[in-house]
Amino acid sequence: MLACRINGIDGRQIDISDRACQYGDGLFETLAVRNGQVEFLEAHLQRLAKGAASLGIPMPDAGLWRADIRTLLVGRQQGVLKLMLSRGPGGRGYLAPDDPVTSRIVMLHPWPVHPPEYVEQGVRVRLCQMRLAVQPQLAGIKHLNRLEQILARREWADPAIQEGVMFDNRDRVIEGTMSNLFWVKGSTLHTPDLSACGVQGIMRQQIINLAPALGLDVQIDHYSRQALDEADGLFLTNSVIGLWPVQQLEERLFDPLPRIKQIQDKLDAVRLQHAESDF
Amino acid sequence: MLACRINGIDGRQIDISDRACQYGDGLFETLAVRNGQVEFLEAHLQRLAKGAASLGIPMPDAGLWRADIRTLLVGRQQGVLKLMLSRGPGGRGYLAPDDPVTSRIVMLHPWPVHPPEYVEQGVRVRLCQMRLAVQPQLAGIKHLNRLEQILARREWADPAIQEGVMFDNRDRVIEGTMSNLFWVKGSTLHTPDLSACGVQGIMRQQIINLAPALGLDVQIDHYSRQALDEADGLFLTNSVIGLWPVQQLEERLFDPLPRIKQIQDKLDAVRLQHAESDF
Repeated sequence: MLACRINGIDGRQIDISDRACQYGDGLFETLAVRNGQVEFLEAHLQRLAKGAASLGIPMPDAGLWRADIRTLLVGRQQGVLKLMLSRGPGGRGYLAPDDPVTSRIVMLHPWPVHPPEYVEQGVRVRLCQMRLAVQPQLAGIKHLNRLEQILARREWADPAIQEGVMFDNRDRVIEGTMSNLFWVKGSTLHTPDLSACGVQGIMRQQIINLAPALGLDVQIDHYSRQALDEADGLFLTNSVIGLWPVQQLEERLFDPLPRIKQIQDKLDAVRLQHAESDF
Repeated sequence: MLACRINGIDGRQIDISDRACQYGDGLFETLAVRNGQVEFLEAHLQRLAKGAASLGIPMPDAGLWRADIRTLLVGRQQGVLKLMLSRGPGGRGYLAPDDPVTSRIVMLHPWPVHPPEYVEQGVRVRLCQMRLAVQPQLAGIKHLNRLEQILARREWADPAIQEGVMFDNRDRVIEGTMSNLFWVKGSTLHTPDLSACGVQGIMRQQIINLAPALGLDVQIDHYSRQALDEADGLFLTNSVIGLWPVQQLEERLFDPLPRIKQIQDKLDAVRLQHAESDF
């Protein structure tokens, strides 16, 4: 970690009674910083506010988050910002204080250096054994209860494999451990319905928004593994990686798909449009 | 909180990069301390070790936990000990370090003062709307991903209601937000199967162990709400409260059940037998 602010003060120590530590009682956002610009800041703050409303955590004013980000980014051109919102210190027990004093945490991590082939040729992906539980009350939001993803990510150590696809416990395909999943078949772009589990990524929404202009119908639905087997091509998205095509899924190899390259180019343009330097 | 030790050092500040804060990547135990004695310490350490094995977190030596407890309890007669084991500091991302440096945390909280009627006459309980997700990979263990319990506990503010009963998303009764649930019907003691979700409490196991000597058959099974409606009497258990009879479940009132009083008396005796002063 390069730098951290907690409730507007430089530092990285937090009281152990904070409910983020005790129960994972909070939310997070991960944002890309490139060329001194923060991508999709407004969209991330909106999603954080939406998640906070779901959990009943008061959302600090956007201006406070922006001030922290401004301070952390002085003299820096790139990095990964992680915003965390916790319900704050609490007693021993699940009952939250009536009037919680939230913890607002902004961390800056180094920009991860991935081989350019990941974007250009694609990545190797496996299917995870670990299943996501069906939990509509927590579905979609980026909360701090992440043991399912951690157990899934522990299934492989091979550095040649960059991501694992997760299914729910009804064997429906949902997402990657750290990314959303899409695939193209004919002129339709498919991505799983996330009303039962999964995280509704900011990049995912951008892809859904931009696809029609590229002549793609978007279908958001429940899918079994068979849908992946029948796909012309797959790709992964998140706020840091942007879009990685899937070059290999388990044993199957995919040829580069021009449609996916078009989506990637369009996403790059949209990322630039939504990069803020005046936060 | 009265006192805290982190990795054997007095203090209550933890690095924000700790995976307990970032992902809820850890476990906890809650132990009763009465008359200077720690109850079921060995059983709690065993359950912690079992949970750590499930998550792939190295378990610190029992002697280290015991040394922390000994230090914290000098001059103290009662309290609630909370042990936490986190996978420790980590990078940004779900992949854990190959060789994690765990965080071993021991906290001492004040003993909670509950009205004696809770033990003697029983408590008032409601049924929660919030459902527990079916997740066999995390079922039974006392991990730090507790948003389901937090959302359930937020359903009521009435201080006259002491606990809420939770169902899974298949509408099977599972447990209380902070306790395990039992009921008596005829000469059978029933408690839900926790292989799909829930926490296997230390007191729950004690009750299961002691029931046959009181002439009760123990049935651990999947149950719907109807089983609760047909019960002669219900009760709740956890390591701090011991056993609370249920006096009222939603609108239904229960007369005191001699069988439950017998279980309570026997549990009190077992707690005394398993209280360690030489830790």
